[in-house]
Formats: sequence, structure tokens, C-alpha cells
Amino acid sequence: MSRGPEGSVTVAMAQLEVSPGEPARNGARMLGLIAEARGRGVSLLAFPEMSLPGYLLGDMWERPSFLRECEAWTGRIIEATALPGAPITVVFGTVIPDWRALGEDGRVRKYNGYVAAREGEALRHPGLDLPYGIKTLLPNYREFEEPRHFYDARKLALETGRPLESLLEPFILELGGRKCRVGIILCEDAWEDDYVQKPLEILGRKGCDFFLNLSCSPFTQGKNEKRNRVFARKVGKLGSPLFYVNCVSLQNNGKTLFTFDGRSTAYAADGSVRAEMAAYVQAILPLAVEWRHGKADIASAGTLSAAGGPGPKDRLPADAAKKRIGEIHQALKYGVQSFLASMGQDRVVIGVSGGIDSAVTAALYREILPPQNLLLVNMPSRFNSGTTRGLAKELAINLGCLYAEIGIEDSVAVTKAQLDGLEITSPDGSRFAAISLAGFVMENVQARDRSSRILAALAASFAGVFTCNANKAELTVGYSTLYGDLGGYLVLLGDLWKSEVYALGRHLNEEVYGREAIPEGSFTVVPSAELSESQAVDEGKGDPLIYPYHDRLFFAWVQRWNRATPEEVLEWYAAGTLNAELGLEGVDAYHLFPTAPAFIRDLERWWNLYNGIAVAKRVQAPPILAVSSRAFGFDHREALGRPAYTARYLKLRGELLSAAGPAGSGRP
Amino acid sequence: MSRGPEGSVTVAMAQLEVSPGEPARNGARMLGLIAEARGRGVSLLAFPEMSLPGYLLGDMWERPSFLRECEAWTGRIIEATALPGAPITVVFGTVIPDWRALGEDGRVRKYNGYVAAREGEALRHPGLDLPYGIKTLLPNYREFEEPRHFYDARKLALETGRPLESLLEPFILELGGRKCRVGIILCEDAWEDDYVQKPLEILGRKGCDFFLNLSCSPFTQGKNEKRNRVFARKVGKLGSPLFYVNCVSLQNNGKTLFTFDGRSTAYAADGSVRAEMAAYVQAILPLAVEWRHGKADIASAGTLSAAGGPGPKDRLPADAAKKRIGEIHQALKYGVQSFLASMGQDRVVIGVSGGIDSAVTAALYREILPPQNLLLVNMPSRFNSGTTRGLAKELAINLGCLYAEIGIEDSVAVTKAQLDGLEITSPDGSRFAAISLAGFVMENVQARDRSSRILAALAASFAGVFTCNANKAELTVGYSTLYGDLGGYLVLLGDLWKSEVYALGRHLNEEVYGREAIPEGSFTVVPSAELSESQAVDEGKGDPLIYPYHDRLFFAWVQRWNRATPEEVLEWYAAGTLNAELGLEGVDAYHLFPTAPAFIRDLERWWNLYNGIAVAKRVQAPPILAVSSRAFGFDHREALGRPAYTARYLKLRGELLSAAGPAGSGRP
Repeated sequence: MSRGPEGSVTVAMAQLEVSPGEPARNGARMLGLIAEARGRGVSLLAFPEMSLPGYLLGDMWERPSFLRECEAWTGRIIEATALPGAPITVVFGTVIPDWRALGEDGRVRKYNGYVAAREGEALRHPGLDLPYGIKTLLPNYREFEEPRHFYDARKLALETGRPLESLLEPFILELGGRKCRVGIILCEDAWEDDYVQKPLEILGRKGCDFFLNLSCSPFTQGKNEKRNRVFARKVGKLGSPLFYVNCVSLQNNGKTLFTFDGRSTAYAADGSVRAEMAAYVQAILPLAVEWRHGKADIASAGTLSAAGGPGPKDRLPADAAKKRIGEIHQALKYGVQSFLASMGQDRVVIGVSGGIDSAVTAALYREILPPQNLLLVNMPSRFNSGTTRGLAKELAINLGCLYAEIGIEDSVAVTKAQLDGLEITSPDGSRFAAISLAGFVMENVQARDRSSRILAALAASFAGVFTCNANKAELTVGYSTLYGDLGGYLVLLGDLWKSEVYALGRHLNEEVYGREAIPEGSFTVVPSAELSESQAVDEGKGDPLIYPYHDRLFFAWVQRWNRATPEEVLEWYAAGTLNAELGLEGVDAYHLFPTAPAFIRDLERWWNLYNGIAVAKRVQAPPILAVSSRAFGFDHREALGRPAYTARYLKLRGELLSAAGPAGSGRP
Repeated sequence: MSRGPEGSVTVAMAQLEVSPGEPARNGARMLGLIAEARGRGVSLLAFPEMSLPGYLLGDMWERPSFLRECEAWTGRIIEATALPGAPITVVFGTVIPDWRALGEDGRVRKYNGYVAAREGEALRHPGLDLPYGIKTLLPNYREFEEPRHFYDARKLALETGRPLESLLEPFILELGGRKCRVGIILCEDAWEDDYVQKPLEILGRKGCDFFLNLSCSPFTQGKNEKRNRVFARKVGKLGSPLFYVNCVSLQNNGKTLFTFDGRSTAYAADGSVRAEMAAYVQAILPLAVEWRHGKADIASAGTLSAAGGPGPKDRLPADAAKKRIGEIHQALKYGVQSFLASMGQDRVVIGVSGGIDSAVTAALYREILPPQNLLLVNMPSRFNSGTTRGLAKELAINLGCLYAEIGIEDSVAVTKAQLDGLEITSPDGSRFAAISLAGFVMENVQARDRSSRILAALAASFAGVFTCNANKAELTVGYSTLYGDLGGYLVLLGDLWKSEVYALGRHLNEEVYGREAIPEGSFTVVPSAELSESQAVDEGKGDPLIYPYHDRLFFAWVQRWNRATPEEVLEWYAAGTLNAELGLEGVDAYHLFPTAPAFIRDLERWWNLYNGIAVAKRVQAPPILAVSSRAFGFDHREALGRPAYTARYLKLRGELLSAAGPAGSGRP
């Protein structure tokens, strides 16, 4: 460790906004931030992981021309450190192709790596003896799939026969005349607890003045609090400060969109948070690293807010539940703004039913679009009540946007007249059968008429897109019509449980609009598709989902790290611990389902849907904006197939049904 | 190596049909095959990789109850070797959870492993000292993502500090009174060329009488020929025979369905194919392994055909192109049969236009469905010619299935009357703008009316599903309407280029029907969507795609292992090597596009679509049945974003356009 005199150097976190797959745009932004940092006397400027290429790119890594483009920009960033002016060291993450070697897919070998550059030269990594460093731990869960594309330090250790420890060395950087030992790692390398190899610990044992953790880390509810807990422990143990530098971005893998929230954080030597940058804003934050008795720490940041820290409007309420919904709101807002911008879209059509999902969707879009760019459309049939039609119109008035009411009775009648009773003939001309449109078919006809006929044509004519307003509970069990209300360019609320949709609606009214933008009636009306007489809201009839219960049941299937299945659920039920295991609030499962047969019937109904037709619907669902620890799509990989029940489940089921008497028989 | 007396033992390949995610079904089948093998005097019965759980299961591996279910069945298979009768050793691949250890995702550690069982006991692996063996090389490309779920021998070597070589040892199996050294590996372990570590070579150096390669290997065009080439070389070098045991299955990861074709193959000690099992049929094939001068080899298989070898009807023509299309046909037929069965579906509705795609789709379904379960529907508008309407009807007559003609003029008129000219108002009631349905919008209205209105309702009323008839060229650039002709339960031809669709049509007429089932006119009519006057087939007008050229251009973008982009394509164009690089046949790109501006305009038009709106369409497209080396979906991961052009492309483009004069200006 450097034992020089007392003193300080200025280290800046560069919270870069990253456009995935566009090294030229990212590189130009980096050049701008490097120039700014030099002007502000920064000695060391640290960019996030994968600053130049972006990160979630599907298989774009398999295009050699893309790799060459990234490489050319790596050269340009290195050259920028040779420009006249105060000396600066720039550290940035990027893809490093090794054209002389092969990856395990037979393509050119690629690293998720980083470069430390100074005076126009990439410094040599002391452990690798290469002009770059590389990542050790490649995450391979949730939406992450780095080993698909990148080679890593562990494979290099195995290949060369060198101990991994010898490949991990701190960089010796000359900063403000001082030789500093800087431990540089990439994202997952600091999340080492579940791995046998621990890069941060290894570097810590070798002695570092401070650490840089270059990250590309998507927003997930509660992730930042978890990081602060984990890093406080780790950094406190290491006794040297750490800079967590994250990017700001919207990136996707097709079906699932992820926001990268920035929130770059400087941890002092004792593990406490010394400075945190604002969410979803590109900025640099220079901080002084000071040496006392030869030991480095980060000075307190007096000018934090001016330098990209949270301003008064960004500050979230202290209350945990409110803070969480506020963060979800931030993520959705940034995500949809970035997504529209990336498509060059700024006009949106929303089908509004009077219910809460479409109302919250509309209120959120109205936050980011001018009133004449947002068109709300109510599309009533005979089954839509005056109640909900009134709420839809009230919403449009409250939001001050465009509005149209377009009925579907005539067109549905055309379909009914044309298809119901239609004679199907054999090729010899003989009558085979007559088509009869059953009730559930007519429900779907209505839903498809609205989306595929009206909204799709309206959106195209409005030079815009139309939304899908489904929530996560509906997506879980496919409670929506393919090519109907499941159509749209994006499912904005597709990663929010129904309870979160309500909470977000309250948040929008209270914190964003400061008034009843979403009508109170949309919160209190019974959730209903209003597609038949059996779903009449004025008679209190609506969805078959009991959201306070099913939200939590589905959460156990979808979102638990170790996924629960009917086996576990039935065991909890039998043990009397179901309410606690599911975390039910304000609802008692044993009261909802007083008998085992009733409980099992409900359980299997939704399990069959979740693993059956709902998978097929999700395959064709629009992209989903992720805010939870497991969104549908790329973070919830699944196969089309038959719903399965384990032998243990079937045994317990049999026992419970036998105990309940003959009424409860029947196998799933 | 065993140096016992001359003699022989009977080794059988068990080409199991695997139901993904259903260990109870697979286990029951295995018990049946074990009993059969005992009856036939088999000493060693080898099942495929992942026989019990299946393989492509999405994230089902994250359910502990599923792992326990698989584990229970592993126990049952082991116990079955203790049943009274001739002693048998059973080797089978399955998931092996290690409940005491963690994987790198923090969940229970899992191996892609295998068990060798005899007399009710799992034999201890001599290298691992565990009652199972594990896989060394986990494929992580295309649709494979094993490291996401499984730990492997390389990580174990790194973790324990033991050399990998010491973890890989042949099993000593007592077969027919002889101690045999059997090298057992799993699938990718034999495809070791791109890896630094080479499990088959390592085992070979340790001396094996013969090898088992338990596989779970999906069908890809030309894969079996490639395997025979690679394995001939490897096995010949090792000098000991190898049994490649593959499963029969349809498995999927949601968007993309893969058939597993079996074709288990026994390679003699010189690397030649001694026996190959039939495609897509569950069977066991016992073969004699004989020792001469202490060296084992496989005796020639006299009873091959009876034991599951190819029967006369399965035999494919010798001609390479015909063989390839025959294999595609086999894969599609097995795939769609299995997919329908897995959903419990046996009725299908197909929209038939008179064109080749829907005709080939219909002819293939008619092969597997009785005539009264297949309903063809022609849905003409004013733009559909008598030519194509006649071809659609002729097709239905030729196939002898149900047929309906349902016009869309009335319903399209309702939409036009309702939306065209519709006044959109501001919330204060003032007029904002009138909607006008442009020509391209009306084209999409027609396409959506057909699929979302008619086919969806008809299919539900027919108690069936409806198909999507898009081909791979259309999917590449999104030349189809979302919620319109891109709707359906499956894109049967979604992995076939247009030229392959034509070839498959010829194959069906010649090899399957032996008559003109698909009307000749459907082969010769110009491909057209017939959605406007500009697509009138009788005037020779149709699709903007020049299939013989664009098929091959798109192939270079989509299917090359190192993906080509406009940069490479333009370089080939400039170098005069484009025809050869794309592999054009019967068409000359320089003739199609006589000037650089014309060539570049076409190139960028389709590149922008492929990387732009077509991605969004593919996210919402139906599942695709894979037959190529890269199908859309899980084997072609992609992000929604902006189409990118590299600096090198833009430079070359500028040079070519400058040389062509001022008419060619304009940037992408």
C-alpha cells in the first residue's frame, strides 16, 4: 500500500448514460465527460462497466463488425487522455476482443473488461501483463447471461494453470504525483458471496488504497438498500473506500426492458455511504480521496447536490413503502421515456376502461407527453356500465388529453352475423357443421375488436403506438385476450402486482399530480373485464381473481428465489402457516377457502393456467418493463408444456380430500 | 484396459422418448425399456442425457420440488436394476442436485450428471468418489444455456484445487463377467474442439474398452453428417468404439421449439458408423461388443432394421438436397404432431391465400390430421384475384378437408366507416383532428380482420387452433402484420427460407402425396400479400422481396456463425465477390442492383427493418419450430433498439456514393 505523505487526489465517478449497441454515441458522451472532468481538476475518472458497447444486446456480440467498432472507440478514449491539459487517468469498462484466441463457442474470444488509460496509453495490468483487466465472476441468472458471450479470469486461470490469485492485482496508478494502489473490479466481482472465488477479498489481501467497482446494474426494487448493506459490510472489513460507478440506461433483451438507475455510490473506508448520485441522470461527481497516516478515505462531499446528487424534487419519502413505490415510479417513467425516444415515438393511444390499470397507465403517460400527444379511447359494448364509462371520461378530463368514445356493438354484430351459424362444408359441398360462437368466444371477440381493430388502426393513423394495460397478476395466469387486451407496444404495468398498481395510482395522485387525476371511482370500482353480464360492476361482479390473496400466491410461484409450487403451498395450507408464508395482509386464506376441496380447486385452476395457456400468451405478449426481482420474459424463462404436479403434492392432496369426504374427489 | 479372454457383451442404446418436465412419464418409459432389455439379454443399457427431467425447461430447475421429484425417480431407476432376472447395468443421464452445496446463483447446486446402476446400487465414480458422474463442458450458445443452471467438473476442479484430469475416470463396469473400462461422457463433452479441456481425449488417454456419449441433441440441418465426420475422426484416433445415445423429443424454451431426432449411432473402433437408429422413434438397439486380442469393437448389426433401424419408409433419398428437405419434413412433422399432442389439440384452422406458404402449411397438417379436423379458410377482399381464390379452393379439394370462404369486405367497411374521418376532441369538447386511414393502415386492417377477427373466433368455435404461415424471410424483416397474419399458435415454416418452402412443397407433392396436392399454380403465382392494387398477382405484382437474393442476404445476417452486417456485405459488393459470398444461385446481385445507390438503398431498407420494427414483431410472434442452425427466438437473442451502422460501413458507403455521383447522397 502506498505510504506517501498526507495529501489528497480528486476521483470522480462518471455516471454515463449508455445507449446500448451504439459505441459512437457512448464514446462521444465519454469524451465530453472526460473534458469536463479535466476542467474540474479530476485526477481519476471512472466510468461504468460496458460503457462503450452497452450490455443487454442479445447476440450482437456475434457480429465481428460491432466488436471492431467498439475496439476503435476504445482507442479513441485512450487517445483522449493524451490531449493537452491537466493529466488525467481514465478507467472505463468495455468489451475486449482477443482476436488471436477463441471463445468456447468457436467465435473470437471476448472479455467483459476494462482499460486504465493515461497520457494516451493503456496501462498494463500487473497480473495479466495485458493492456486491460478482465472480469472474474460472470453472472448467469435472471436476465444475465455473460458466460454466453465472454471468457473470464477463472477460465484463464484453468487454461494457463496459473492460480487465479496471480491474475488479480491492483493497478498502480499515478494520481496527483502519488502512486496509488487501486483495486479495480467489475460489477459481479463484488457480489462474490455465492462464489468460491472472491475477487474483492483477493485484491483486499493484496492491499489497495481504494477500490473501483465499475458496474452495469439494473434497477430492482430494494436493490440499492441491499447493496448498501452488503457493501457496508465488505468495505468496512476491507478498511478502504470503494466507488460503485453505475450507468444510466434502458436496455432490453427483447421481451423484457430493464432500467439502469445509476445511483453511483461512494463508500467511505468504514463502509458508510459518503455520497450517492441521483437516479437516472448522467453526471460526474468528483470527490476528494485523502490520506491520513498513509491510509486513504473519501472526504465528505460538500457540493454533492450540485454535482449530481439528489435534488429536492428527486428526494424520496422516508417511509419504506412510499419510498419503494416512488422508486418504481421513477423507473417506469425513465423507462417509458427512453423506450419511446429510442423508437422515435412521441404519440400514444390508450384504451381506457374506467378501471385502475388503464387509468394508472394513462396518468403515467400524461406525465411525460403533452396533452395533444396522448389519446384516450373508451370502447364500450352493451356490457360496459355507465359507472366505468363515466370514470374513463372523467380521467381524460382530469388529464386534459385527447379523448374518443368508439363503440364496438356494430362491428361485433357483423362478426356474430357472419360467423355464428356459418355452415362449414366438406370439399364435396356437403354440409359438415355449423359454427356456433359460445359465450367465451364472444368475450374474446369483443376484446380483439377493441385492440386489433380499433386501437391498432387508430394508433397507426395517430402516428403513434398503443399500450397494453395488463398487470402482473393477469399476466401470470393469462387473464387477458391474445390479440385483444394483451396487444400493444409495451406492458407498462406488466411487472406490478395489482396491489402495486393501486399504490402507484395513489402515489401519482398524491405526489405527482397533487389532486385526483385518477378518479377515486377507479380505485373503488370492482375490477372487471365487463365482457359479459356475469361481470357487471354495478352488481359487484367482476374478475375471478381475489387480488389480495392471488397477488401473494402468484408471487410465491413467480418471484421467490427458490420457486414455490403447489407442493409447498399445500404443505403450508395443511400446516396452518399459509397466511404467514404468503405474507397475506388483511385477508385470511382459510377464511376465503373454508374447505380443502375449495382451496385445492382454486390452487389448481390458477396453477394450470400459469403453466399452461398463460405461457403461450406470454410468448406473444408485448415487451414488459421490469421493476421487480423477477419480471416475465427474459428473467422468467419458461417452456410451453403441460402443468406438472409432483408425487408429494398428489399424495398430500389425496389425504386432504379423503379427510374432506367424497365431495372433494377428482384428480388435477 | 481390460485384457481378458476373447468374448462379447451386449450393449444396447435406449433411444428414449422424453417428455420435458415430466420425470414420472419418462421414468415409467425407462422402466419399460429396462424390462425389455433384460428380456433381450442386454448387459449394459445406455439412456440419453437428462432422461428423467428433460432438458429445455426454462427455469423449472429453480423449483426444489421438481428437483426432489427427479431425485425420487433416479432412486426408482436404480432400484429397478435389483429386480430378479439377468443382471443388467443401466446408465442414464439426469439432473443431480447436491443439497449440501450452493450453485453460483445461491440456489442448490445442480449437475448435469449420470448414474451407472447395478443390482440396486449406484456405482461410485472412481474420479469423483461420488455415486454419479458429472458433465465437464456445458454448452452456452444457440439455445443452450447449461451454465445458467448447472455446476460442472471444471468449476469443481477450480474449487477443490484438483487437476481436472483426476476427476475424469472411466467407470469399471462388470458386464457379462468381464470387467470393462467404460468412458462415459455427456453430449458436449465429445464436442471438445473449441474448449481448452478435452474430456474425451483425457478419458481416451486413460484407456477405455469403449465409450458412451449420452446426449440430448436437437435436430439441425446437416448436424448428423457433421457428427459423423467429427466422431469418425475422434473415434478413429481413440481406437475404441463409441455409442452416441440421443433422445427423441420435442422441447422448447417458449418462443422456439426444437425436435430431438434420436438417430442414436454406434461408431466402430475405426470411426465408421456401425449402426444408426431411426429418427423420431423410441426403441432400444442391442449390439454385441466383441473382444479380439483384448481389444473391443462392435460386431456388425444384422438385425438393425427390426431393432429400430430405418425402415423402408423412413429411408431418405441419396441426393443431398432431397435428403436435406426430407429431414426438414421429418422434423416439422414430428414437431407439430408432438406439439399438438402436448396441448391436447387435434383440430387446426388455416387461412389459405392460394400462395405457397399457406398451401405447404396445409398440406403438411393434412398429413397428420384427419380431413374433418382440418379447416381451410379463404378470406378474400376486393384485392384477391380469382387466380389465388381458385388455388385456395383447389388446395382444399386436393386435400379433402373442410373449407370455408369468408369475405372481409363488409367488416373492413365497418371499420373504415367508423374510424376514417373520426373527429378526435379535446376534453373541452373542441375538435382536435380527424383520423384518416392511410393506405398502409387499410392493408393492416385487412390482415388483422382475417386473423384476429375471423380465424381466432373460428378456431375457438372449432375447438382448435389457427396457424401462422409466415416464412423466415418474412420474419427477418417483419413483412407481416402484428395481430394479423403474424398471429397464430405456431409458425410451422418460420425457420424455412422461401426457397426451402418451395422445395418442401415439391417434396410433399412428390414424396408424400405422389400427386399434385399443392396446386402447381401456387408454385408459379407471384408471391403477394394481395392487400392493395399494387400487389395484383395477375399483373405480375407482389412482394417487394426478391426471394432468391434476399433469402441469401438475410441468411448472411441471421445464420452465419459470425454474423455479417452491412459492413461486410458492402465490402463484398465493392470487391465484386458478393454473389459468391452470399452463395447466390440463378440470380446476379450486380444485375439486380446495377448501381451502388440502388444496392445500398435496398440493403439499408431491409437492415433497418431487420433491426427495427421486425424485432418488435418477433417479440410478439408465435412460437417457431426450429430446423436450421439458427432459428428466431431463443437461438437468435436480440434487443429492441436502433439499427446500427459501423463507421467502416459509413466510410465505404460514402466512397461508393461519391463515385456514383450526386444522385446517391443521403445517410442512413
